[in-house]
Amino acid sequence: MSSAPNKVFVAVIGRAGVGGVGKCFLSQLRGLAARRSSPKLSLCYVSSSRKALYHDDYSAIAWDGVVEALAASSRAPPALPDVIEYLAAAPAKTILVDNTSSQDVADAYPLALSRGLSIVTPNKKAFSGSYKLWQDIFAASSASGAKVYHESSVGAGLPIISTLKDLVDTGDKVTKIEGVFSGTMSFLFNSFAPTEGQGGAWSAEVNKAKALGYTEPDPRDDLNGLDVARKLTILARLVGLPIQSPTSFPVQSLIPKELESCSSGDEFLQKLPAFDNQMEETKVAAEKSGKVVRFVGSIDVAANRVKVGLAEFDRSHPIAALKGSDNIISFYTERYGGNPLIVQGAGAGGEVTAMGVTADLLKVVAQIS
Amino acid sequence: MSSAPNKVFVAVIGRAGVGGVGKCFLSQLRGLAARRSSPKLSLCYVSSSRKALYHDDYSAIAWDGVVEALAASSRAPPALPDVIEYLAAAPAKTILVDNTSSQDVADAYPLALSRGLSIVTPNKKAFSGSYKLWQDIFAASSASGAKVYHESSVGAGLPIISTLKDLVDTGDKVTKIEGVFSGTMSFLFNSFAPTEGQGGAWSAEVNKAKALGYTEPDPRDDLNGLDVARKLTILARLVGLPIQSPTSFPVQSLIPKELESCSSGDEFLQKLPAFDNQMEETKVAAEKSGKVVRFVGSIDVAANRVKVGLAEFDRSHPIAALKGSDNIISFYTERYGGNPLIVQGAGAGGEVTAMGVTADLLKVVAQIS
Repeated sequence: MSSAPNKVFVAVIGRAGVGGVGKCFLSQLRGLAARRSSPKLSLCYVSSSRKALYHDDYSAIAWDGVVEALAASSRAPPALPDVIEYLAAAPAKTILVDNTSSQDVADAYPLALSRGLSIVTPNKKAFSGSYKLWQDIFAASSASGAKVYHESSVGAGLPIISTLKDLVDTGDKVTKIEGVFSGTMSFLFNSFAPTEGQGGAWSAEVNKAKALGYTEPDPRDDLNGLDVARKLTILARLVGLPIQSPTSFPVQSLIPKELESCSSGDEFLQKLPAFDNQMEETKVAAEKSGKVVRFVGSIDVAANRVKVGLAEFDRSHPIAALKGSDNIISFYTERYGGNPLIVQGAGAGGEVTAMGVTADLLKVVAQIS
Repeated sequence: MSSAPNKVFVAVIGRAGVGGVGKCFLSQLRGLAARRSSPKLSLCYVSSSRKALYHDDYSAIAWDGVVEALAASSRAPPALPDVIEYLAAAPAKTILVDNTSSQDVADAYPLALSRGLSIVTPNKKAFSGSYKLWQDIFAASSASGAKVYHESSVGAGLPIISTLKDLVDTGDKVTKIEGVFSGTMSFLFNSFAPTEGQGGAWSAEVNKAKALGYTEPDPRDDLNGLDVARKLTILARLVGLPIQSPTSFPVQSLIPKELESCSSGDEFLQKLPAFDNQMEETKVAAEKSGKVVRFVGSIDVAANRVKVGLAEFDRSHPIAALKGSDNIISFYTERYGGNPLIVQGAGAGGEVTAMGVTADLLKVVAQIS
């Protein structure tokens, strides 16, 4: 008896110009296609925000030069329902890879899944938006048997979602999840309040992080805590908590009230130094008790309590000792007892985010081919 | 279109009295069967070293009271090839769970896989023995399409094997793997050479670890380093290094030469105090440079170099700061750059080892049902 895995079609939706993660993913996928003779992955659709590349007969798009070919395409992306119809009619099982961070694409997952398309994505929006969308997605997946994998929606390629699923699926009782979930926040606080030596002024550290490319174009998108809140929402729902939205629990914003109305990121950065004393006080208060301040998220499962914000840690605590822009996530469970299961490492970046997507794709392929 | 996963047969081979991991696994499996309506897992064979329970018509063995029913069985386990023939003739896909640490069972994997049986196991022997057996196992799996999963062969339920496979399969270049791979060694050195305070004499710590159940019945089975060498062999092979055997690279034994000929573990423990000065010197030498000594394994992929033994670490190093009997494994890769991907937590114990087995079982079920 020999295994003869069937062809699997892959469709890739990307953001403007395919995007950083999108380019890394296509490159990893090309490497994969070159190394693995079976199952045969066939790229049948690829799009950016403004262009699309596909053939009406589903013939394969060449991996080599796909980004350039897409840029040169004269076709615009069809409306999402039309893309889904096109893919659902493909003559083999199809995986839809969503490399955008678009709410519109996320909203189409239930339809795609109900039409038998499996989904692989780093897009947080589908899993951290309304609880109804979350329920619709998994109900559609369960009904059709199509898979939905989203490892890179938390901690990029780090094994966070898969580990949590294994714990839950095998019957362990997760009691608490705690960690640093944002590479930006990690970098900022490791610099601002290092365990050894002195950090700079808060606004100076924010400017440095932006200059190094560690923040969003507008740093307020990191400092408002919503990115961390979205990740916590996903993990809490995986444990079984019916979190309604990423704003339905306490999230501490590091944007001073007085600067909430700034009309641009530049104006915000210009005015931020006047508020450095606020963060400095927080830092000094922690230092007085021999601790350091960090921006963390935590889920207390028994108490059904999720929160995001500043907390103090002993200098020897793994969260305090984090380096660079690393993430760290601790799972406290009944089986693991007093010492948590900890996963740590880079939680952002094109290559590692794409790696989570590619690994998910392989797992889906193994199940549907 | 609705998914209707087929029935999957499960056969479980255990050690004497089923064993600690075996009991935890059967309990987790029972919970799983109770929670999941589909796919339907049907237990068709269970054995310990001396008893077996199965029906010639493959009718399901009840999950409740299975350990007691097995103890009461009057059937002895058939020879392994006969068990494999029985399972290969089952009227559905079958997963063989090997909860022993037996070389004989491991040697039968190629036959089982070639007959279409998937294998899930914490047994290190199959993957850390001769390189030929390793090759035969994966060749048989590749030819028949039957799966072989062994997460718990390294670090129990910690996501070590799955993470390394994801890194390799998606095309990352692993450059180095380093860590504490033995719960026993972790406990011994965290007590003997703590980062804060003073540890006891080496022989006293070994006796303490044995009294707490952290060592094998004969502590020499931990102190000879072979258990760690086996785990390193598995990881190195997964990265692509053709390691011939767990004794084909340098492994430092902590059994003093003069005590290698002791006829029993008790005699060894009785004579060990006379050699405390050897370990004390190692500890003091590390302390003089502000470090602590730990028992680690490392794989330098580029240099094709694997080694196991004592090494010194800064007190702030994650390996030095480990707690209790935790394992820690750091993956250095091209994509992750300077800061490694780290997994940490309990790497031994019935429940967490069984969890790795149960999670593997679910992954195989998802692929074959």
